[in-house]
Amino acid sequence: MTAPLILDGKKLAAQVRLEVAEKTARLKDQRGITPGLAAVLVGDDPASHVYVKNKRQACADAGMASWLHQLPAGTTQEELLDLVDKLNADDSVHGILVQLPLPKHLDTALILDRIDPRKDVDGLHPDNLGLLADGRPRYLPCTPHGVWQLVKRNGISWAGKNVVILGRSSIVGKSLALLLLQKGVDATVTVCHSRTPNPGHYLKQADIIVAAIGQPLWLKADMVKPGAVVVDVGIHRKPAGGLCGDVSYDEVAPLSSAITPVPGGVGPMTIAMLLVNTVESASLAGK
Amino acid sequence: MTAPLILDGKKLAAQVRLEVAEKTARLKDQRGITPGLAAVLVGDDPASHVYVKNKRQACADAGMASWLHQLPAGTTQEELLDLVDKLNADDSVHGILVQLPLPKHLDTALILDRIDPRKDVDGLHPDNLGLLADGRPRYLPCTPHGVWQLVKRNGISWAGKNVVILGRSSIVGKSLALLLLQKGVDATVTVCHSRTPNPGHYLKQADIIVAAIGQPLWLKADMVKPGAVVVDVGIHRKPAGGLCGDVSYDEVAPLSSAITPVPGGVGPMTIAMLLVNTVESASLAGK
Repeated sequence: MTAPLILDGKKLAAQVRLEVAEKTARLKDQRGITPGLAAVLVGDDPASHVYVKNKRQACADAGMASWLHQLPAGTTQEELLDLVDKLNADDSVHGILVQLPLPKHLDTALILDRIDPRKDVDGLHPDNLGLLADGRPRYLPCTPHGVWQLVKRNGISWAGKNVVILGRSSIVGKSLALLLLQKGVDATVTVCHSRTPNPGHYLKQADIIVAAIGQPLWLKADMVKPGAVVVDVGIHRKPAGGLCGDVSYDEVAPLSSAITPVPGGVGPMTIAMLLVNTVESASLAGK
Repeated sequence: MTAPLILDGKKLAAQVRLEVAEKTARLKDQRGITPGLAAVLVGDDPASHVYVKNKRQACADAGMASWLHQLPAGTTQEELLDLVDKLNADDSVHGILVQLPLPKHLDTALILDRIDPRKDVDGLHPDNLGLLADGRPRYLPCTPHGVWQLVKRNGISWAGKNVVILGRSSIVGKSLALLLLQKGVDATVTVCHSRTPNPGHYLKQADIIVAAIGQPLWLKADMVKPGAVVVDVGIHRKPAGGLCGDVSYDEVAPLSSAITPVPGGVGPMTIAMLLVNTVESASLAGK
C-alpha cells in the first residue's frame, strides 16, 4: 500500500494563522479595531499555564491583543463572575477564554454560561451550540471546526461520507456531529460511545473516523477499513515519555489513506480556530 | 412471524395527559398555580387552526389555562414581537406557542428567538437546543421527547441500540439525535438525510428506525431488518384521501417487531409533551 497522507495540523494551522493575521491587519487599517482575547486562568495547573501561554503567543503572532487575568486557586465564584461581567462589558475584548479545568469549588457551567455568547470564541456556550444545532452557527466550536478544516483543506470531501465519531462529549463528539450534518457539509454521521456494545461494527464501515474518547491508543488496526481517513482528537502522555492519541498510530497508519499525527494534528488547529473566532467577533463588533 | 407490537401514541398520550392533569391539580392545590399556555396564531391557515384548537382542548382537558391570540395575516413583525414581549412578561403565562408556519413576510427565527427560553415549551429555542446539546436539557423538544417515550414506555430500551434517524431537521432529526445520545439513554445514533448516498445500507442494520424525512411512504420493506422497531414521524395527506406517514406501513409492519401507526402514533405524543413542558415551566415559575 502507498503511504498515507499525513494531515499536518501544524502546517495548516500556520496557514490559517497567516490568514488571521491578514484579516487582523485589515481590521486595524480599515476600521481601527484590534481584535483582542482575554484569557482567564485560575490556579496553578502547569498544563493550563502552557496552553494559555501558547494561545497568547498565537494572538501576538497574528497581531492581535491579548490579556492574561491570572487569579489565585482560592478565587470565589463571585469574584470570577464579576471578572466575566467586566470582560463582557469591555469593548476592547472580543473573545473571552476561561481556561479549563477550574478548581473544583467553582461551578464551571455557571461561569461559562455567564460569558456573553458574542464573546464566546470557544463556541461552547449553550446559545452557540443551539445556533449550531439550528443550522445557523455564530461561532463553530474550536476543535470540531479544526477537524472539519483539517480534512477538507487537505482535499478530502466530507459530503456523502460514512463518518463515525467516537465519543459523545459536547465539546467534540456532539458538536462535531452537528457541524458535519450541516447542509453543504453533508456527511452521514454515526456517534459511538462508551455504551456502544460493538463499536468495531460501525468503525469497520467508516470512510472517516474521528476518535475523541480519551483512551490512549484505543483504536486498533482491526477496527479500520483499509483506505479510511483517521482523525485523532486525543492527546495523552505516555508512561515511557512522549505523547500519543486515541489511535494506535503505528498499526493504523499503514492501513489508512490519510491520518493525523499526535502531536501536530488536531491540537494546533484548535488554537488556530480560537483566533479565527476572535477575529470574527471583532469584525462583528459594533454591527 | 408474529404480529408487530403497535406503538399506540393515542393511548400513551392519554396516559401522559392524565399524569399532566394530576400534576396540574397538585400545582393548583399546593401552590395556587394554574399552568397556562398562550397560543399565537397568525393568518388563516386551516390546518394551523385545527392544530391550535387541539392543543387548547388538551390544555382544558388537563385543567390547564390557555389563551388564543389570533392575529390577521397582515400583522407586522413589530406587532408580533410586541405580543411575544407582553407574553414573556406575563406571569400567568408559562408556555408560549407560536404556531408555524408564519406568513412569509415575517422572520420566523427572529420571532421564535424572542420567546423567553423559560417559556419555550416547544423546546426549540437555541438556548434550549444548546442546553440539550450540552447534556443538561431544560425542556426537551416535543416531537423527539414523544418519540423517546413512545418506544421506552412500550417496554423497548434504547440503550446500546443501533438507531438510524432519517432526516436532519433541527425540530426532529438533530434534536432527537442529541436526546438519544444522552447519558442514561445511551443509543448509538446514525443520522441519514437527503445527501446520504445509500441510506438503505444504514437502515438495513438498524435496530430502531425513526423516519422524519417528510416523504410519503418512503421507507420500504427492503430497507428494514426483520424485527426492527419502526417509528414514523411523517404525516401526509394521500391523494385518494386519508393520511400516511414516511413509512410504507403495509409492507414494513409485517417485518417489524414494533411500529407506530399514522395517524395515532407520534402525533398525539407531540401534543402531550407540549403539556408536560408547560406544567414543568409552571412548576419552575418563581423558583
